[in-house]
Amino acid sequence: MSGQLAVVGLGAGDARWLTPEAQAALAAADALYGYGPYLDRVPSRPAQTRHPSDNREEGERAAAALRHAADGARVALVSGGDPGVFAMAAAVCAEIEAGPDAWRTLDVVIVPGVTAMLAVAARLGAPLGHDFCALSLSDNLKPWERIEQRLDAAAGAGFVIALYNPTSRARPWQLGAAFDRLRRKLPASTPVIFGRAVGRTDEAIAVTTLAEADPAAADMATLVIVGSPETRVIARPGRAPLVYTPRAAQGVTA
Amino acid sequence: MSGQLAVVGLGAGDARWLTPEAQAALAAADALYGYGPYLDRVPSRPAQTRHPSDNREEGERAAAALRHAADGARVALVSGGDPGVFAMAAAVCAEIEAGPDAWRTLDVVIVPGVTAMLAVAARLGAPLGHDFCALSLSDNLKPWERIEQRLDAAAGAGFVIALYNPTSRARPWQLGAAFDRLRRKLPASTPVIFGRAVGRTDEAIAVTTLAEADPAAADMATLVIVGSPETRVIARPGRAPLVYTPRAAQGVTA
Repeated sequence: MSGQLAVVGLGAGDARWLTPEAQAALAAADALYGYGPYLDRVPSRPAQTRHPSDNREEGERAAAALRHAADGARVALVSGGDPGVFAMAAAVCAEIEAGPDAWRTLDVVIVPGVTAMLAVAARLGAPLGHDFCALSLSDNLKPWERIEQRLDAAAGAGFVIALYNPTSRARPWQLGAAFDRLRRKLPASTPVIFGRAVGRTDEAIAVTTLAEADPAAADMATLVIVGSPETRVIARPGRAPLVYTPRAAQGVTA
Repeated sequence: MSGQLAVVGLGAGDARWLTPEAQAALAAADALYGYGPYLDRVPSRPAQTRHPSDNREEGERAAAALRHAADGARVALVSGGDPGVFAMAAAVCAEIEAGPDAWRTLDVVIVPGVTAMLAVAARLGAPLGHDFCALSLSDNLKPWERIEQRLDAAAGAGFVIALYNPTSRARPWQLGAAFDRLRRKLPASTPVIFGRAVGRTDEAIAVTTLAEADPAAADMATLVIVGSPETRVIARPGRAPLVYTPRAAQGVTA
């Protein structure tokens, strides 16, 4: 009996973004692992065991899923959004690198998904329509100075910036510090998007400016996008504004 | 009669990544617009018109789709991957901004999708597992100097770099110049991934190093990922290597 570990992206917050590949991987699994609220999004099937775990235990959860697959089971380890973006796929790779030789011969499949920045951007137009970066504001696993250096580099070079993990109870000041840092490099009018719980029933999307951006408007379920100096806002009567970053740099025509 | 324009991401290369939301938008459309090869991926339905166009005509195609929707039709404009990433959503926003007032009141929906960098990354592990950026190498619409500046900034700050539009018949030297530029900032051993036609029957994924990376290995259908100094390669007996960028910076433990 040969096991398999599928690391499955559920997409951001809603079954409308669950790909056919992800659906098939979930249906084929003998065992499901994941952070509890993500597992709750997966319909129950008979003869399929469920192993919810806490948010902070990525390495532990990855190792448990690997052990179970190495025993011959078909295991699905679920992630919100895309498992390769600040999520479980890197944790699984790290456990494989550090773990027993048998884990290196295991069949491991990563199932990509619609990550939060794509879902939030889609709600508003195309804020990520040109060069952009994705940056985790969590300083649990990297020094804050490195985050500041990346904010400076990205803003200075004209990248739109998607901020993952902007805040949490244990990290209350980082988003405010990031906005302050970005205000040194970017115009006050730069569009800032707060995308909370995108695709869920409690979704809330707001557009403001870097000058007005209030870090208290974000929580753990929020994805923040900070525009570049080229990002534009189109007012629309009776509709939410569109926010987009043009494909053409200012002054260049096709 | 009120029309709608849905800008629909088909996902990268394969129906396994076509989301339920995208399927529904395609099924509901009276008219389909898009670059010919993308339209060819959408099954035909009776009473649905198809309007293929050439690759280079994004603005023209967006305007045609907007006109048709403003006439009261349900129009789907298809994009490969995610429409918000170097694709049609920004072109639609630009046409709305420049176009007649009626286009601003139109119902416009962007349907996100699995963009190429996520699909390529999933094939190998988690190369985008920590901070990364997405950069178009096309200098059709921005000066080459700005691309060099962004390559320097991204590599210098430790971002993994996904290169979209790495090469074409009209842009034969840019990828080689980009590799040369990155060699000044990054170790020779930095992993480089060539992901060609991901999800298609002619898919080809290769892992090499920045020292060895040959720009001739890329074509128009290729997505290139250049690692950061922290990106790791795990050899696996009898299997393709895993490539991942750890969540933890070197020397930091959770």
